[in-house]
Amino acid sequence: MRCDVVAIGTELLLGQIVDTNSSWLGEQLAAAGLDSCLQVKVGDNQARIVAALRSVLRDADAIIICGGLGPTHDDITREAIAEVMGVDLVLDEVIADRIAHMFASRNRKMSENNLRQAMVPVGAQVIEQKRGTAPGLICPVGDKVMYAVPGVPYELHEMYERAILPDLLARSGEQRKIASRVVRTWGESESGLNERLQPIIDDLDKVGNPTLAFLASGWEGIKVRLTGRGADTAEVTALLDVWAERVHAVIPEVVFGYDTDTMESVVLDLLRKRGLTIGVAESVTGGLVAGRLTAIAGASDVMRGGVVAYASEVKFDVLGVPRGPVISEETSRAMALGVCRTVGSSVGLALTGVAGPDEQDGAKVGTLCIAVAMPGGVASSTTVMLPGDRKTMRELSVISALNYLRQLLLRG
Amino acid sequence: MRCDVVAIGTELLLGQIVDTNSSWLGEQLAAAGLDSCLQVKVGDNQARIVAALRSVLRDADAIIICGGLGPTHDDITREAIAEVMGVDLVLDEVIADRIAHMFASRNRKMSENNLRQAMVPVGAQVIEQKRGTAPGLICPVGDKVMYAVPGVPYELHEMYERAILPDLLARSGEQRKIASRVVRTWGESESGLNERLQPIIDDLDKVGNPTLAFLASGWEGIKVRLTGRGADTAEVTALLDVWAERVHAVIPEVVFGYDTDTMESVVLDLLRKRGLTIGVAESVTGGLVAGRLTAIAGASDVMRGGVVAYASEVKFDVLGVPRGPVISEETSRAMALGVCRTVGSSVGLALTGVAGPDEQDGAKVGTLCIAVAMPGGVASSTTVMLPGDRKTMRELSVISALNYLRQLLLRG
Repeated sequence: MRCDVVAIGTELLLGQIVDTNSSWLGEQLAAAGLDSCLQVKVGDNQARIVAALRSVLRDADAIIICGGLGPTHDDITREAIAEVMGVDLVLDEVIADRIAHMFASRNRKMSENNLRQAMVPVGAQVIEQKRGTAPGLICPVGDKVMYAVPGVPYELHEMYERAILPDLLARSGEQRKIASRVVRTWGESESGLNERLQPIIDDLDKVGNPTLAFLASGWEGIKVRLTGRGADTAEVTALLDVWAERVHAVIPEVVFGYDTDTMESVVLDLLRKRGLTIGVAESVTGGLVAGRLTAIAGASDVMRGGVVAYASEVKFDVLGVPRGPVISEETSRAMALGVCRTVGSSVGLALTGVAGPDEQDGAKVGTLCIAVAMPGGVASSTTVMLPGDRKTMRELSVISALNYLRQLLLRG
Repeated sequence: MRCDVVAIGTELLLGQIVDTNSSWLGEQLAAAGLDSCLQVKVGDNQARIVAALRSVLRDADAIIICGGLGPTHDDITREAIAEVMGVDLVLDEVIADRIAHMFASRNRKMSENNLRQAMVPVGAQVIEQKRGTAPGLICPVGDKVMYAVPGVPYELHEMYERAILPDLLARSGEQRKIASRVVRTWGESESGLNERLQPIIDDLDKVGNPTLAFLASGWEGIKVRLTGRGADTAEVTALLDVWAERVHAVIPEVVFGYDTDTMESVVLDLLRKRGLTIGVAESVTGGLVAGRLTAIAGASDVMRGGVVAYASEVKFDVLGVPRGPVISEETSRAMALGVCRTVGSSVGLALTGVAGPDEQDGAKVGTLCIAVAMPGGVASSTTVMLPGDRKTMRELSVISALNYLRQLLLRG
């Protein structure tokens, strides 16, 4: 069964509000084994809304319409739906009373246009509003259906789960469950992954379940997403386990986690498992690495803190780096050892490099020296050349350094 | 002229990535006086992409197509466009060479499928890629046009501004110069700004040029955008100067900058003008403030560095904070004075607070204590209660602290 989404509101087209409702609905529908193949944003214009609904209804079995159910003159979803159904709008006394009571109970005067929310297309079924004032609507059109819900996420979510999903599942023959597994990778290009995983992709093309897709995630590497269907959750999970393991077996060195794992959460877990604490010494990234590690709730049992050694004197005076050029692995190792002493951590991670726009100490823009000090006062280091502008180079430095630390922790 | 948007990617329909590109484009198009009446998300399915493009082309003069230009098997935007144009795809040698060179320059092996990105529909014009590897496309269909751009925002934004907007304006026959002035504000709600600026909005409704729009910008406050038209740049600039000045006169205390100004660039400029240097001591934000300040090229003449004092012992031992509960203005003032000593800066900015999920030292989640140490060893401090989850609270802490420093620097 295919359920598409139409989000209504000129503010969405003007980019004043980002439409997150259709994304949320897409995720919910997929989890329920329902397809959502088209999601449309259209403004507060009745002719355009009607055209969009008719166009989507040609291919979809159902439409969830978000927004435009408010009391004001530009809330015209009800009128558009009635036009598509070819029926009139009539006042629903029950809704009208409920709205009137709600205003009375809050000692607020109800303006006439609030009753617009009590207008219902003939033949439509009302979804009672448990939150807010706008009721939802279930509107049959031939053997298909349109659902109307408020655009306020808090109201939409409740109505979807209580009334729309059950109605969709009742109409849907689809008994199978669908689920996804995301394999998080870093250090290999999308095309490189594609080439290495081609044999698996070919096998999947034959069986058709699960499907595999590559998702770029900015500076965070490439996600390999497996989406499968099965009789129940256990069957899908087992299917995803098998194929995720096959993917991992081909690219073990670039897989850093699964699903909601992030590079920082994985690094913190590795440190925690080994009873280690960490301090971070940053020059080129100026605090971004520490900021990432402390973004994780509960990081405080592992993360001690750090030193942002932006000026060279801070490297020399606070971290005890020998005076001299500061873009070098020697400097990064001294910074890593120094931050362990300064913040009292057992592990130290240090970054020094050149984000640009200009060269420094004869080192080219994009140069990054990373060092990790391990318990016992031994420091390892590496140098990488990173592409991109200042922001990109800094972001790539963060993930590169965390991944370097991750690999050293795995080696033990 | 009407330019609609089609965003391509099954991950968008499954809600694994929220489509922010069409919102961004809608905002840009509106600022240029172009209409965007329909924005569509469709999956990686050639038949559906082709159907969506044909359907949108019926009513729109132009389409911007985002995504699906990558090198992998599920990047089929090029094929879909060629089908809609009714032409073949041919290899563009120039693009092929450029891609090969890029891989060579990074000492990375280029896999064969990267050349898919060099395939161009016959009759299409190439938009050279300045970022990433995927070039954009300008594809005429009759008297209409389809633009294809990568789905990576960083790549999309650059191509839109450099190639697509100029092409759209040329086709729209708009002879007048269009320019925008953004007034950056922080500390006032959108409805509050709307109320205070109502007299100006009423005047603008009469003259119609420039137009005024409020743009939320996440944690960075509300942008007041003036968009004007004139015979030439000088005329538009003069017009925008007049109205920006009127806006500023009504809300002087919440305006922190214009256009590309950011809170951190403004703070660095104020410090620089007064010949001051800064050090940052962070607990709750864990390095995010220092990370923001060092994001600005040339910050090094003002920014000395900082201490991420995440563990209480680091506050005591490194910054000399008296032992005791650490969520207090006293602690923040001690941190601010301490970081001046540690990194040798004349100004110190310090933050301590509770991002959650749990309370700390009896302080509620959302509590933020900010302190600023000025030359002479005097420290001012304040406490604010911030809303939101852990991430939101931390981001609001960064901007709140920078704005507090900005206001103290203005007072001199």
